[in-house]
Amino acid sequence: MTASAFDSAIYRDLLGDAEVGALLSDSAEVRAMLLAEGALARAQGGLGLIPEVSAAFIHRAALEVQIDPAALAPETGQNGVPVPGLVAAFRRAMQAPAHAAFVHWGATSQDIHDTGLILRLRQALVILEERLLAVIGALGALADDQADLPVAARTYAQVATPTTFGAIVASWGAPLIRHRARLVELRPRLLNVSLSGAAGTLSVMGGKGAEVRAAMARDLALHDPGESWHSTRDGMAELGGWLTMLTASLGKIGEDMIWLTQSGIAEVRLGGGGGSSTMPQKQNPVAPSLLVTLARFVNGLNGAMQGAALHRQQRDATAWFTEWLVLPQMLLGGARALAVTRAMVPQIAPDAARMRAGIDDGLGLIYAEALSFALARTMARPQAQAAVKALCKEAQATNTPLATLAARDWPDTDWATTLTPEAQLGEAPHIARAFARAARTLTE
Amino acid sequence: MTASAFDSAIYRDLLGDAEVGALLSDSAEVRAMLLAEGALARAQGGLGLIPEVSAAFIHRAALEVQIDPAALAPETGQNGVPVPGLVAAFRRAMQAPAHAAFVHWGATSQDIHDTGLILRLRQALVILEERLLAVIGALGALADDQADLPVAARTYAQVATPTTFGAIVASWGAPLIRHRARLVELRPRLLNVSLSGAAGTLSVMGGKGAEVRAAMARDLALHDPGESWHSTRDGMAELGGWLTMLTASLGKIGEDMIWLTQSGIAEVRLGGGGGSSTMPQKQNPVAPSLLVTLARFVNGLNGAMQGAALHRQQRDATAWFTEWLVLPQMLLGGARALAVTRAMVPQIAPDAARMRAGIDDGLGLIYAEALSFALARTMARPQAQAAVKALCKEAQATNTPLATLAARDWPDTDWATTLTPEAQLGEAPHIARAFARAARTLTE
Amino acid sequence: MTASAFDSAIYRDLLGDAEVGALLSDSAEVRAMLLAEGALARAQGGLGLIPEVSAAFIHRAALEVQIDPAALAPETGQNGVPVPGLVAAFRRAMQAPAHAAFVHWGATSQDIHDTGLILRLRQALVILEERLLAVIGALGALADDQADLPVAARTYAQVATPTTFGAIVASWGAPLIRHRARLVELRPRLLNVSLSGAAGTLSVMGGKGAEVRAAMARDLALHDPGESWHSTRDGMAELGGWLTMLTASLGKIGEDMIWLTQSGIAEVRLGGGGGSSTMPQKQNPVAPSLLVTLARFVNGLNGAMQGAALHRQQRDATAWFTEWLVLPQMLLGGARALAVTRAMVPQIAPDAARMRAGIDDGLGLIYAEALSFALARTMARPQAQAAVKALCKEAQATNTPLATLAARDWPDTDWATTLTPEAQLGEAPHIARAFARAARTLTE
Amino acid sequence: MTASAFDSAIYRDLLGDAEVGALLSDSAEVRAMLLAEGALARAQGGLGLIPEVSAAFIHRAALEVQIDPAALAPETGQNGVPVPGLVAAFRRAMQAPAHAAFVHWGATSQDIHDTGLILRLRQALVILEERLLAVIGALGALADDQADLPVAARTYAQVATPTTFGAIVASWGAPLIRHRARLVELRPRLLNVSLSGAAGTLSVMGGKGAEVRAAMARDLALHDPGESWHSTRDGMAELGGWLTMLTASLGKIGEDMIWLTQSGIAEVRLGGGGGSSTMPQKQNPVAPSLLVTLARFVNGLNGAMQGAALHRQQRDATAWFTEWLVLPQMLLGGARALAVTRAMVPQIAPDAARMRAGIDDGLGLIYAEALSFALARTMARPQAQAAVKALCKEAQATNTPLATLAARDWPDTDWATTLTPEAQLGEAPHIARAFARAARTLTE
Repeated sequence: MTASAFDSAIYRDLLGDAEVGALLSDSAEVRAMLLAEGALARAQGGLGLIPEVSAAFIHRAALEVQIDPAALAPETGQNGVPVPGLVAAFRRAMQAPAHAAFVHWGATSQDIHDTGLILRLRQALVILEERLLAVIGALGALADDQADLPVAARTYAQVATPTTFGAIVASWGAPLIRHRARLVELRPRLLNVSLSGAAGTLSVMGGKGAEVRAAMARDLALHDPGESWHSTRDGMAELGGWLTMLTASLGKIGEDMIWLTQSGIAEVRLGGGGGSSTMPQKQNPVAPSLLVTLARFVNGLNGAMQGAALHRQQRDATAWFTEWLVLPQMLLGGARALAVTRAMVPQIAPDAARMRAGIDDGLGLIYAEALSFALARTMARPQAQAAVKALCKEAQATNTPLATLAARDWPDTDWATTLTPEAQLGEAPHIARAFARAARTLTE
Repeated sequence: MTASAFDSAIYRDLLGDAEVGALLSDSAEVRAMLLAEGALARAQGGLGLIPEVSAAFIHRAALEVQIDPAALAPETGQNGVPVPGLVAAFRRAMQAPAHAAFVHWGATSQDIHDTGLILRLRQALVILEERLLAVIGALGALADDQADLPVAARTYAQVATPTTFGAIVASWGAPLIRHRARLVELRPRLLNVSLSGAAGTLSVMGGKGAEVRAAMARDLALHDPGESWHSTRDGMAELGGWLTMLTASLGKIGEDMIWLTQSGIAEVRLGGGGGSSTMPQKQNPVAPSLLVTLARFVNGLNGAMQGAALHRQQRDATAWFTEWLVLPQMLLGGARALAVTRAMVPQIAPDAARMRAGIDDGLGLIYAEALSFALARTMARPQAQAAVKALCKEAQATNTPLATLAARDWPDTDWATTLTPEAQLGEAPHIARAFARAARTLTE
Repeated sequence: MTASAFDSAIYRDLLGDAEVGALLSDSAEVRAMLLAEGALARAQGGLGLIPEVSAAFIHRAALEVQIDPAALAPETGQNGVPVPGLVAAFRRAMQAPAHAAFVHWGATSQDIHDTGLILRLRQALVILEERLLAVIGALGALADDQADLPVAARTYAQVATPTTFGAIVASWGAPLIRHRARLVELRPRLLNVSLSGAAGTLSVMGGKGAEVRAAMARDLALHDPGESWHSTRDGMAELGGWLTMLTASLGKIGEDMIWLTQSGIAEVRLGGGGGSSTMPQKQNPVAPSLLVTLARFVNGLNGAMQGAALHRQQRDATAWFTEWLVLPQMLLGGARALAVTRAMVPQIAPDAARMRAGIDDGLGLIYAEALSFALARTMARPQAQAAVKALCKEAQATNTPLATLAARDWPDTDWATTLTPEAQLGEAPHIARAFARAARTLTE
Repeated sequence: MTASAFDSAIYRDLLGDAEVGALLSDSAEVRAMLLAEGALARAQGGLGLIPEVSAAFIHRAALEVQIDPAALAPETGQNGVPVPGLVAAFRRAMQAPAHAAFVHWGATSQDIHDTGLILRLRQALVILEERLLAVIGALGALADDQADLPVAARTYAQVATPTTFGAIVASWGAPLIRHRARLVELRPRLLNVSLSGAAGTLSVMGGKGAEVRAAMARDLALHDPGESWHSTRDGMAELGGWLTMLTASLGKIGEDMIWLTQSGIAEVRLGGGGGSSTMPQKQNPVAPSLLVTLARFVNGLNGAMQGAALHRQQRDATAWFTEWLVLPQMLLGGARALAVTRAMVPQIAPDAARMRAGIDDGLGLIYAEALSFALARTMARPQAQAAVKALCKEAQATNTPLATLAARDWPDTDWATTLTPEAQLGEAPHIARAFARAARTLTE
């Protein structure tokens, strides 16, 4: 059954993510929970809470036993969580009742489930960070290459003034550099071991609860939160928020690409587009569309994710179950959006001629602001603006280039040189190169 | 890979829905799209657009060929939609090139994909309606049984005045009856065949496009929308909104059950609860928690779904892809919530003694309003309210029942009879029975 | 203070809605709650629950007294609801304690607050319906006028095949006709009097509660729900969902207008656009942008609104307060979007020449599908498609019109007539006129 | 008109926030935009772009002129932004055309609007941080005071094991300390001057654009982003996400308080609750309910806010307008939630006796886990669990305390001492005190 298109065989090459998906598989979930049980036992063995020989046995068994995820279904359906069934199956699989009795000593289901999740999130975030840096790197190279290529900046979907394609690419990449910084900041707040016992107090660990948690954290190379986070889910919410911001930034690239590659504009060509089932000439912007979709999808899920931070009492199944339904798909959304972007960026082919045509449709109205500032050197700016506005109207009415009219009215200036894209790029090339440098610093 | 817990083997018995899930499987998707192709061919054969013999061949083949969903992945990844790959695979599988050439004649991918989806939605809605009626029926029986059972009504989580458990059950069921009416209303707006051709005009069907669409609709027993709905997605949005309202109403039942079964209140017991991995005495309200979770999850998805109704131009992949990611899980959320409720209702066991204790903790403060109205027969209501407020304070300070104090101050009234739950039920029994009748009318 | 831009003096002409806003003012809220108190008293007087003379006095006073909304603030802050403060102020203002004692007899705050809201919603929905019909009428006229005007249909932002501008306008209007039908359906589920007493049972109305509610409903010309809806908020949720769908449909018009009026496309001109503070030549699509914004804003609020349908126990302030924060702005969002659309539609000026240029950039690749179907009369469709795909490539490589190449390869057909917009419009003119007729039927 | 309850006179004491509200007023918006114009002029004067005397005049005038916000409405309605109207009004108000011509030199509306917003956000965040620290401090004191007070931990709304009230308070406060750290991190990404010119390039500033921006940033004590952020809204999205997480954490406190103060549990009393209009005995948890409401409301708005980070091209009015509608209310939601919490915390009065009763209803089933671990010292844990489960059933069936049964079966242990709350608190007192210390460190 494929409730989620992420899980579908049909949509595998459109939406699937083998690498991150593997971390979210049923067997990976079981494996990670067993790792948590093994680390718990080793920590307790080292501190004398359970026999060391049992601890060693449990730890090794946790690495070796094979437990069929599907076999956990009945007890999971009954209990709401897979851990009781897993612990029972693990004990049986160990075939050593004397040691098995010390499995899951003083822990609660949420400790194991959350720790297992964190172990997988850690790996997933490594993958996402690699992809993020690769995208930043690719955008940096593109911004450098196109730092001086004039293109029309568009505001409200209307041509505004010239900029460069490199500066646009820089605006795509700059938030990604900040998202990387945010990722670095959120990791220690997220990647915590969970060990709290039944209700946050570790009351059955003989006063050594804090030491067990610290040892377990060391063993798993996770952070020790120094407290229970059963009901304080701000770390999870922060991750959800980060994935939402990340996919929105990638979605902006997708949206801009749709506008740039659209029929009639076509200032950028994109390789690898999709074909129509009936229109042979069409080349559809599949990858950019997917980026927008993933941004919206992850944002929708984020509403449920942030709501789950309102976690009641000392454990709230309504909130916790919500995380289970929501977080894996948010993670896949972010992962897939990065993969799509990484594959798309090298396919971006700007068309310099069409970009130039986009700047100047023949009338050169895009230079209106530049002309008004040039005139403002010799007259008050409001008058200059009024003069230019009148000239724009005349240009449109008579189909005469603005530069021609300007030359008629103010013959002393070399308008043919001033009213060109190259003369009006301002900071754009610098912005493009500054981003390219920042990207190189981060990725080299 | 299990991006969605709905797809997971571990969580199958908690979140899985075999019946509706089967309609959302990859193979069901392929099957439904082939049915659409078959009906299209038959309609066109009947109208002389394609050879009748080819139409018959295609129609039969659409029922018989086996196409591996996974084999569609590469072309789907390339094109963004599975239809071009499916059409190609179908043509190959037919092993009759002369007929195969007439497959998908003048249709576009979205026609086939959307029609295939609608065919599956029709079946899913039959299942959901059956479950909805079963839940209404079960709630009706429960309301009837418990129409007179006094229980404290709680507002702001504070005991307010007595009501009956049957009236509470009626408040659970009444919105479900309206949801059924809404379902009846939305069906003809949703269950439409889609046939519009490349961009909504059916331009290559030789002026017979509208007739083909009508014939295809008849063949599939769907409605003929009389127009293209490629870019008008209000029917899909209405379905999303309906599923959101439905799961919210079921989530309210879940939430109320959590409050009623909580430790220290326990006015209702619920069979079949979940066990703790470490606390042997616990019985967790798994089913009610799940209902709340599903309500929140579906609501989160609905944000993306409603956003997708803002569908740009004549086809907008960013909006359309979003529906693919969102709708199946909304449907499963609604289906699963109904199944969980249907299984839960018969397990609801009210505890009359605890309910009575909840109404009256010994002081009988819950009768304050009743007392003030009784007094208002002989004094102005504001004075009566002030008098009762003072009496409430005295009752709490001196730990004396309100009825005792009332008997002291107004000895002429039989307060022992008046200030009882039974005397204060008002319309509650009637509300319970009226709902029970309405439920019976609907379900018998 | 202007938390909401809807309330701002600066943004009054951009976002303000004087007509619907007046219904949402503090004084309108007070007025409507007093009307509810008056109707309650009259119903109770008629049924002998309170003295008829008091009832008449209260009813008249409810129409006449002036209560300063700001004076209710302290008690509202204390109690969470304005009703206790309002009842006290009303009693004082009546200056007739003997009658005043019978104000609010057996009702609870929520009865008065919700009934007052419903009275205002009824008026607001009349306004929205009028605007909706006006928009439908205007779109109908536009669709009729432009039923035959060829324009490129665009899918994935790529030119697909020709359609007509009237057909596009029809796709804007068709969902609005359905939204009108939905409004008709939801009204009786929404426009209910609320009278339930402290906790849904009307226990202090001496067995006449149901009669009082029915009489009060008649007096206010509202529906009698026959039950309490304190905690069953599906009617409110349905309204929220309707406003969300409505603004999404209007947002789609806005989005399409942004694409159609954008620089470089400009197939439609729109009067009344906004000026830039620095670019004299620009004309910004302010109204279309606003429509998209309102769609997104209302959708965001809808998440909270639908969540509030999960209303716990017999009254849940967390859910009820949420409605207060959310619903007025959803209503204004819908109202304003309709007003903006109504003003915008007459300003829509299609540019037939640019539309023709958009269809055919000189190569006529848009006719590829038509050509392939024309060829499919004499060869198998897959071969035809392959032949056309090759021809499209040749056309692009050699900058030769597709029709020229077709004439070279298949000289027997009159391609110059076949490969024109007019020959390829299919159902588009019919769709436009059918919508125009439906709009006329509805609005005349 | 009060679209938003935040703006209402009736709800002023429930939802109003005079301090933060003042920053969001129309006049504060005008004032802040004038400050931005003044700083721009001064920066340009210092760099020789405009005459220094004009710069000084503009700067002073920006501090002194009075511009009526309402007078900007017509032009704002026309242009979509208030800046063109403001610049015109400012020029007129200066009554010095020669200087006035240099106002807004080379800037665009968004520069001024965004910079003005950032100036106000900076002040708002100072207020929020003060409140946040005050709440942390108050929670720290409460956690310290109640570090050892036993109370039942509840998971799934079922009593789990004992904890202390101080540990619960610590779980409320710990995320707030992290939110403070997140605030420190986000500030430099958010509090940036905006100066980019028409489309991000500062092209009319004669090559000195970057210097002007840096000087303007210094003058306003904002950060210089070194680039345009017209279309890169991740800083705004991060603020929205932070406010969402903040209100969720405060909403959790509210929700826990509702559960703790509910009738029948009443382990905590809360001063200052709201009265019912009809039930004299009730004391409603208004403040806690408000916290939950604000969390849900801000979360709903966050959906629109995060969506607005998908900002198209070089300026996207659909996204930008959305921020205007959403952000002020998110800010007020966070500010108000902090104020409500700050006022509520000192009113929290735990009831030790009821808490003890909540832990042990007489049967002592809460000690089941502790008993099973005690037994596990002498038998295998699974057997111990099974034995305890059986004992729990016997306790319930025979209404005999678990400790009595344990003493019968294992007479050698002093169960009367072991199976007490005090013996089962585990880390709870330590967690409470550790949080109290951290709170003190932060707030002293």
